Amino acid sequence: MSIIKVGIVQQQCTTDQADNITKSLAGISVCAEAGARLVVLQELHTSLYFCQTESIPNYDLAVPIPGALTDRFAKAAQEHEIVIVASFYEKRAPGLYHNTAVVFEKDGSIAGIYRKMHIPDDPGYYEKFYFAPGDTGFKPIETSVGKLGVLVCWDQWFPEAARIMALNGAGILIYPTAIGWDYNDSMKEQKIQLDAWKTILRSHAIANGLPLVAVNRVGHESDPTNHTKGIQFWGNSLIVAANGEIRYEASTVEEAVTFIEIDTDQSEQTRRVWPFLRDRRIDAYGEVLMRFVDK
Amino acid sequence: MSIIKVGIVQQQCTTDQADNITKSLAGISVCAEAGARLVVLQELHTSLYFCQTESIPNYDLAVPIPGALTDRFAKAAQEHEIVIVASFYEKRAPGLYHNTAVVFEKDGSIAGIYRKMHIPDDPGYYEKFYFAPGDTGFKPIETSVGKLGVLVCWDQWFPEAARIMALNGAGILIYPTAIGWDYNDSMKEQKIQLDAWKTILRSHAIANGLPLVAVNRVGHESDPTNHTKGIQFWGNSLIVAANGEIRYEASTVEEAVTFIEIDTDQSEQTRRVWPFLRDRRIDAYGEVLMRFVDK
Repeated sequence: MSIIKVGIVQQQCTTDQADNITKSLAGISVCAEAGARLVVLQELHTSLYFCQTESIPNYDLAVPIPGALTDRFAKAAQEHEIVIVASFYEKRAPGLYHNTAVVFEKDGSIAGIYRKMHIPDDPGYYEKFYFAPGDTGFKPIETSVGKLGVLVCWDQWFPEAARIMALNGAGILIYPTAIGWDYNDSMKEQKIQLDAWKTILRSHAIANGLPLVAVNRVGHESDPTNHTKGIQFWGNSLIVAANGEIRYEASTVEEAVTFIEIDTDQSEQTRRVWPFLRDRRIDAYGEVLMRFVDK
Repeated sequence: MSIIKVGIVQQQCTTDQADNITKSLAGISVCAEAGARLVVLQELHTSLYFCQTESIPNYDLAVPIPGALTDRFAKAAQEHEIVIVASFYEKRAPGLYHNTAVVFEKDGSIAGIYRKMHIPDDPGYYEKFYFAPGDTGFKPIETSVGKLGVLVCWDQWFPEAARIMALNGAGILIYPTAIGWDYNDSMKEQKIQLDAWKTILRSHAIANGLPLVAVNRVGHESDPTNHTKGIQFWGNSLIVAANGEIRYEASTVEEAVTFIEIDTDQSEQTRRVWPFLRDRRIDAYGEVLMRFVDK
C-alpha cells in the first residue's frame, strides 16, 4: 500500500489546444494502463505558455473550474480510476484569474484545487499580469493515494511553501512546472540554471523527508511579439525520493510519458534517520514572516 | 572590493589539542599569506568530535569565550589582519555549554558569536547532551569583509536558518561543520547522504542568492566506547556561488588548506535574475512557526 506508481506526462504544446488536450489524455491513458494510480501533468498543459507577452485577449484562455475543460480530465480520472493532478488557467470571476492546479479523485470528483501562491514576473514570464496570487494557502489535498502537497512552478524556489505543505501532513510534494531557457544565455548559464532548479527541488525533498514529483514543459515556444527568440522549455521532469535521491529524470528535449514507483513509507524511515522536524527552532523563526529585517 | 579571497582549513583532528590548534593556526597563516581576508575553520576544530559518546568529563573541554583559547585565534586574526570564523565548545556558566562559532575581526577583537541553534541527537552525535540550544537567533555578524551569516553544521538542514540570515542582510552564509559516515551504511547510502548534504547547502545559496562556505571535518575518529566503528568525517568542504554553482569542493579523505575568490556583488546580480525575495508570500507563512499543523 505504501508503493504508489506515479505517472508523468511531459509534453510539448502547440497553438492547437485540442491537440494539447488529446496528448495529455493519451499520456494519462498510457500511465493508467501501466498501473499508475496517480498521474501528474505539467503547468498549463492545454495551451502554449501564453505569458511570454502581456496580451489582454489571452485572458480568454481562462476557464471556470469546474467547467467543460476540467470535465474532460475528471472523466479521464473516473474512466481510469486514477488520481490526476492537472493545471489550468482559472477564470474565477470576471477579470479575476488564477494559475490553478486541480486534483481529480479516481471517481472523477475534484478532490481539491491549489492556486499558485508565488507569482513570477520576468521578461518572458509575465505572470503577474495574468494571475492573481493564490489564496488557497499551502494545504495538501486529500486523495485516495494520500495527501498531495501540490505547488506550481515558481513556488519551487520558496522553501517555505514545501515546509508548510509538510507541516500540514503532505505525503508527496508535486510541482507542475513550465520553466526553460532564454536563448541569449550562454550554455554555461543554462547549465547553472537547470542545475539550480534540480537542486532546489531536491532540497525540498531532503528538508522535509518527502518524495517529490516535478513535471515540466518541454520544447521551443516562440515569442509572439518577436522581442525575444522565445523559450526553450527544458523538460527534465524529476522524481525524487524522500532522501533526495533522484529516481527519474526526463529528457531535456523530448516528450516523456512514463511512470515510476514511489515508496511513501520511505518518508517515515528518512525522517527517523534525519529527524529535522524534531529539531526545528520554531521559537526563533518569527522573522520568516518579514519582507526584510531593516536595521 | 566585491571580490573576497576566502580561505578554508579542513583538517583531521587527534587527541592532541595543542596539535589541532597548531594545525588550524598554520592553515590560517597559509591562507593569509595567499591574500585571504577571511578564513573559515571547521566545527570544533581544536578537539576530536567528542560527541560520539555521552561523557560528563568531556564537559571539561568547554572553554570561556573570550578566554585563553579564543585569544590564540584572536591573536592570529590580528597578526594576519584577517577575519576568522572559528568554532569552540563554550562554557557559558557552570553547567551551561554551547556549540559556538566566534568571528574574530582583523584587529583581533571578537566581532560576534553565534550559538548553534539547531542541536542534533543521533547515535554517534549526542549533541543534545553537550550543547544547550543557542539563544543568539540568526543574526549576521558585521565584519570588515561584510555581514557573515554564520551557522553551524546541523543548522544546514533547516532552510529557515539561512532564510532569516538573508533577511537580516547576510552577505555570505558560512557553516563550520562536522559530518561524516557511519561505517555500517552501504556505499550507496553514504553517497546519498553526502549528496543530500551538498544539495541542501547549495539550495540555501540558491533560495537566498548568497554565496556559501561550508568547512567540514575530515578523517576517521574512533568511538571511545567501541559501540560503533566510529565516524568517517567526509570532508568535501564546499564553496558555492550565489547562483548555486559549486566553486570549490575539497577532498573526501584528505585535509585541505585552500582559498578561493568569492564575488559578493554576484548576490545583487543573481537576485535581479531570480527575484525570490520580491515574491515571498509573507502573508501566508504563519504555519512555519508551528511544530506541526494538527487536524
